[in-house]
Amino acid sequence: MPNLDFVFKPSSVAIVGASTKIGSVGSDIVKNLAQGFSGLVYPVNPKAEELCGLKCYPSLTAIAAPVDLMVIVVPAAVVPMVLEEGGSLGIKGAIIISAGFKEAGKADLENSVKDICLKYDIALIGPNCLGIINPSLKLNASFAAFTPAAGNVAFISQSGALCTAILDCATSMGIGFSKFISVGNKAVLDETDILHYLKNDEDTDVVAMYAEQLAEPKKLMAKIKEMSHNSKPTPVVVLKSGKTSAGAGASASHTGALAGNDAAYAALFRQSGIIRANTAEELFDYIKVFSTNKVKSAARLAIVTNAGGPGVLAIDATVLAGLSVATLDDTTKQALAAALPSEANIHNPIDVLGDAKADRFSAAIEAVMVDKNVDALVVILTPQSMTEIEATAKVIIAARDKYNKPIVAAFMGQELVAPGLAILNNNRIAAYSYPESAIKSLSVLEKFHQDTQSKIEPITEFDDVDREAVSKIFAQAKASGIHSFPEASALAILAAYRLPVLTSRLAHNRAEAEVIAKEIGKTMVLKIVSQEILHKSDAGGIMLHVAPEEAGAKFEEMMARVAVNRPEAKLEGVLMVEMILDPGVELILGSVQDASLGDAIMLGLGGVYVEIIKDVIFGLNPLSRADVFKMIDGLKSKNILEGARGAKPSDKEAIVECVLRLAKLLSDFPEIKEMDINPLFVLEAGKGAKVLDARIVIE
Amino acid sequence: MPNLDFVFKPSSVAIVGASTKIGSVGSDIVKNLAQGFSGLVYPVNPKAEELCGLKCYPSLTAIAAPVDLMVIVVPAAVVPMVLEEGGSLGIKGAIIISAGFKEAGKADLENSVKDICLKYDIALIGPNCLGIINPSLKLNASFAAFTPAAGNVAFISQSGALCTAILDCATSMGIGFSKFISVGNKAVLDETDILHYLKNDEDTDVVAMYAEQLAEPKKLMAKIKEMSHNSKPTPVVVLKSGKTSAGAGASASHTGALAGNDAAYAALFRQSGIIRANTAEELFDYIKVFSTNKVKSAARLAIVTNAGGPGVLAIDATVLAGLSVATLDDTTKQALAAALPSEANIHNPIDVLGDAKADRFSAAIEAVMVDKNVDALVVILTPQSMTEIEATAKVIIAARDKYNKPIVAAFMGQELVAPGLAILNNNRIAAYSYPESAIKSLSVLEKFHQDTQSKIEPITEFDDVDREAVSKIFAQAKASGIHSFPEASALAILAAYRLPVLTSRLAHNRAEAEVIAKEIGKTMVLKIVSQEILHKSDAGGIMLHVAPEEAGAKFEEMMARVAVNRPEAKLEGVLMVEMILDPGVELILGSVQDASLGDAIMLGLGGVYVEIIKDVIFGLNPLSRADVFKMIDGLKSKNILEGARGAKPSDKEAIVECVLRLAKLLSDFPEIKEMDINPLFVLEAGKGAKVLDARIVIE
Repeated sequence: MPNLDFVFKPSSVAIVGASTKIGSVGSDIVKNLAQGFSGLVYPVNPKAEELCGLKCYPSLTAIAAPVDLMVIVVPAAVVPMVLEEGGSLGIKGAIIISAGFKEAGKADLENSVKDICLKYDIALIGPNCLGIINPSLKLNASFAAFTPAAGNVAFISQSGALCTAILDCATSMGIGFSKFISVGNKAVLDETDILHYLKNDEDTDVVAMYAEQLAEPKKLMAKIKEMSHNSKPTPVVVLKSGKTSAGAGASASHTGALAGNDAAYAALFRQSGIIRANTAEELFDYIKVFSTNKVKSAARLAIVTNAGGPGVLAIDATVLAGLSVATLDDTTKQALAAALPSEANIHNPIDVLGDAKADRFSAAIEAVMVDKNVDALVVILTPQSMTEIEATAKVIIAARDKYNKPIVAAFMGQELVAPGLAILNNNRIAAYSYPESAIKSLSVLEKFHQDTQSKIEPITEFDDVDREAVSKIFAQAKASGIHSFPEASALAILAAYRLPVLTSRLAHNRAEAEVIAKEIGKTMVLKIVSQEILHKSDAGGIMLHVAPEEAGAKFEEMMARVAVNRPEAKLEGVLMVEMILDPGVELILGSVQDASLGDAIMLGLGGVYVEIIKDVIFGLNPLSRADVFKMIDGLKSKNILEGARGAKPSDKEAIVECVLRLAKLLSDFPEIKEMDINPLFVLEAGKGAKVLDARIVIE
Repeated sequence: MPNLDFVFKPSSVAIVGASTKIGSVGSDIVKNLAQGFSGLVYPVNPKAEELCGLKCYPSLTAIAAPVDLMVIVVPAAVVPMVLEEGGSLGIKGAIIISAGFKEAGKADLENSVKDICLKYDIALIGPNCLGIINPSLKLNASFAAFTPAAGNVAFISQSGALCTAILDCATSMGIGFSKFISVGNKAVLDETDILHYLKNDEDTDVVAMYAEQLAEPKKLMAKIKEMSHNSKPTPVVVLKSGKTSAGAGASASHTGALAGNDAAYAALFRQSGIIRANTAEELFDYIKVFSTNKVKSAARLAIVTNAGGPGVLAIDATVLAGLSVATLDDTTKQALAAALPSEANIHNPIDVLGDAKADRFSAAIEAVMVDKNVDALVVILTPQSMTEIEATAKVIIAARDKYNKPIVAAFMGQELVAPGLAILNNNRIAAYSYPESAIKSLSVLEKFHQDTQSKIEPITEFDDVDREAVSKIFAQAKASGIHSFPEASALAILAAYRLPVLTSRLAHNRAEAEVIAKEIGKTMVLKIVSQEILHKSDAGGIMLHVAPEEAGAKFEEMMARVAVNRPEAKLEGVLMVEMILDPGVELILGSVQDASLGDAIMLGLGGVYVEIIKDVIFGLNPLSRADVFKMIDGLKSKNILEGARGAKPSDKEAIVECVLRLAKLLSDFPEIKEMDINPLFVLEAGKGAKVLDARIVIE
């Protein structure tokens, strides 16, 4: 693993491709590096003497002093040469700004860049990026228009163009950055590598990310979990675009048809604990709450407002966000009654009334902040004629300094409240224009807090699976050009991984039938097997409820009867199948490969409603038991499994076992492209589950 | 109907309760009226000579000149006296600012106010409100902090405290108002009356409303439909709070249990065509799009951006909002290819690249605006180093002036883009900070446009219902203290309204059985009826598939068999029930009374999944056929009804008929509190529906 300090904390930086042309990228970067950075800066340009007051060098070699970071702005074709030169000189950090690599169809060129970096152990950002900024060092190794303020937010962006808008918004919201990274094509370092570095970065309290695509979910999920369970838990907020882009085309399985483009990403976010922002606005809302509050519970909210209407909106938002409106202690209510006018509402939401000055806000806030039933505070202000906007902002800051509970403010309005918002922003209080955004942001704080409290479960391993048997089946199939496994062969594969496949064996004579019956050891269904008999029932070739001890006799009885009824038919024997007496709940379990995230495992309600209700949820490998329980919990039909309407609860443990064994099969055999286990019947708790049918498709 | 011109366009205004105390409500209103209003202003205060340079009068009577509008700020108890005095003087407009009426438990006082207004035909706003503003007349009859700019938005607010925040936000967004109305307790004039007035107000292009509760849905829905089908269609955007407040308590029926607090309101919004804002922010977003664009289609969007990432976010937002990304004409693509650099994306979203100056935006916009496949335009700008923010804003304004298609802009960032936003706001272009809000707003423009194109359907009337029969049943029940009607009696009520109740009759002897069989005329199920026989089947007391012609014989056969099997049982006879051969799809139909909106009619998927999947939708009386089809369309399980997975499509017409007949029953008998028709089987298209069971609860 290369050392990212060479990129983010260099003592010396060389810019190869430093340009004399004002307004060009190669000129802007030199200008940015010449402003305030305390390390050494070496512009490299064989045709110039000096740039921005800095001495120019004809080449990296000509610098003849140690260089930590090389920023490369030369045309793509020349980049490998420059990188090779830098690598041989012992330069360990690099940023390639230049475009013209994989994104332009030049994968080879990008691979050669990657190889050079691996050879010399160079930490590389890019190519095709805006660069990086470390505001605390005044290191602006990018062509961004300005250097943002230092702060505790690390921002990773896959879109260079979005960066300027982000910097502009953040600046006016008082948000400062610990690191600002445009990752570009990620030839060497990807998000996970950068997260690994940021995990131990003292300056970073929250990581925000704009991503168009993520990859290597196993590595990423593990890293995010490490970060949330770190001694200083660090939330990762991601805005992922491309939610709805055209799907992966037609699909052969149910699972494939049900896997929307976003299904695998939803699983990635749920399993890893990434905080998902659905819009650019939510991204900023969530950055605000995390950069200004410690990670603490915000489950039960106190709402203090000077306007009734927004108080009601806040209640709606609280309930919709899954938080609760705190029930105030009697002492609190007494304190509020003593401090507020008689018309004020002393129940939560606390309405301090339209004519409240800052002191009344203060009294209410003091009263609720000491209440043990209150986890967090929302202060709503509307600018009425008597409202002391700036003084109220200061009251909120004082409360934050005094009490160790999350606080957010919603100052509704614009120009009238702007001075108050500025005070809040400058004093690191998360301030919003609407109560809904303030409360939604607190709900993600609560979600992350819960995440930090949860245990990281180990991935379940199975030592009872017969990997060789499946290897053999697949090898034979591939040799014969077979890619699709219908019922019987699919069930054999699942049986090898000990999924609870319904036992089913063919008996050719009475003796065999008796042996098989003993093995099955349960009530069975007998079915005649003959190529000539399509309608088994009409021929007397189906018998239900056959006990093991009568199986031999019933075998003979059936063979004789069918022989009489259909004398022309050649009888192969009798299929003996375990009989499900109470089928329980019909589920579907399957998998499909996502182009970037790999195997996506689907669990859902089965039966006729599967494609209508579309009550399915996805998971990604590797899955823990807790992950699968969360999947079950995410199904709309989870009440059915919990025993709705007087029914007995289903065997959730058995579902979890099936999902984990399937996950194991998929991780052992990446050639499995898609599969359906349909139906999977889950019986009542303690009685297991049964796979009735399946199909598997391999590459 | 009183004349609201006296409130909104008075020639003369008296303020009763005009105060000398600076900062008091009675002083602020005089100050607001003294600034710029060209009509006559008469402060009434027996103790003052002059206020804000205006001569004071000791009473309304003392004015001795015609007064159009009286603004009343005196204590609640004195209000009726003042109103009576004004009424007798012929004053036809009134605003009661004072609180202390119904909201303070003084319903009597409010009723007396109402009576006086009715007696004198006074148009009254309030009591307990902030007042009203008509900016074009500089008439500020409120105690709001300032008079907003004149514009084309009428705002109706049920929360006085929210008004100042709204005015503040609106001002900084360049939104101006035609009327600004704080409705207070709505003692006389409610939202619908005000909408009726605004419908023909030339200055109003869009009505926005904050409501905590709405009432009289019939009146309101009709008015909103009138407005959307007016010669100048006027959209009504409503932010309704109280979505999630605690429900109406425990309920006796399925329908009651499934009716969330918001279900009836969702029906109100859907049936009327009100544009619903879910948050305060959405309210402003939607006001912007409607106040700056003509009501035209925005179904197919062209997206022009100088940044790829936000372009992808815009595609997501377009698909999620139910709009489509326009497929550009070949001519358009050629024009774009000619005007843009080769690396630019000439497919939609059109990426003019990060270094685009205003001219490149202009070329792209010109190319797409003439494309017949493009209905509306979204321009996304991020502030990159070469971006000409103000000039690009002017390009957008020029395009708006030249082409008659909806346009919205998303200028991402804050301080850097502020000058551009200001130009857009001042020139009435809907400008947003994020592409998601811009596109969601266009989607409501499209929704409203579609609404204006739809026909208003008449309410279906039925002349074949037996109202008297039901009246009689209810009268008898009330006399005996009965409030609940289980199966048989409920089915009789439904049969009287010609709902397709399964025919079922009791035969005591063979002759009766033959007559009944002829009447039913279809395959039947026969069931023995005896108090002593619980398990009819075991006793031989169930026969399926009985044809009408064999019913007599089967009757005798069953009576004889059961007599042998259960000699001790007293047999009452045989119940003959029409047999459903193919049950189709199981639905549930019901109703529950909403505290403010009256009968809410529920339609949903029935069977074991009803309370699990909760796939139900509500409608309000009066319902048109189109309304019911929209309800069906709103069900998740509508695919089942359309014949998913090879099944035959269901008889939707029969569902509509059932819902409308139930609606008629409910409107004829307001005493019906709750009811369930469960199950309602809908058969395949053309074969109708069947009510199998029902229960009705009356007050």
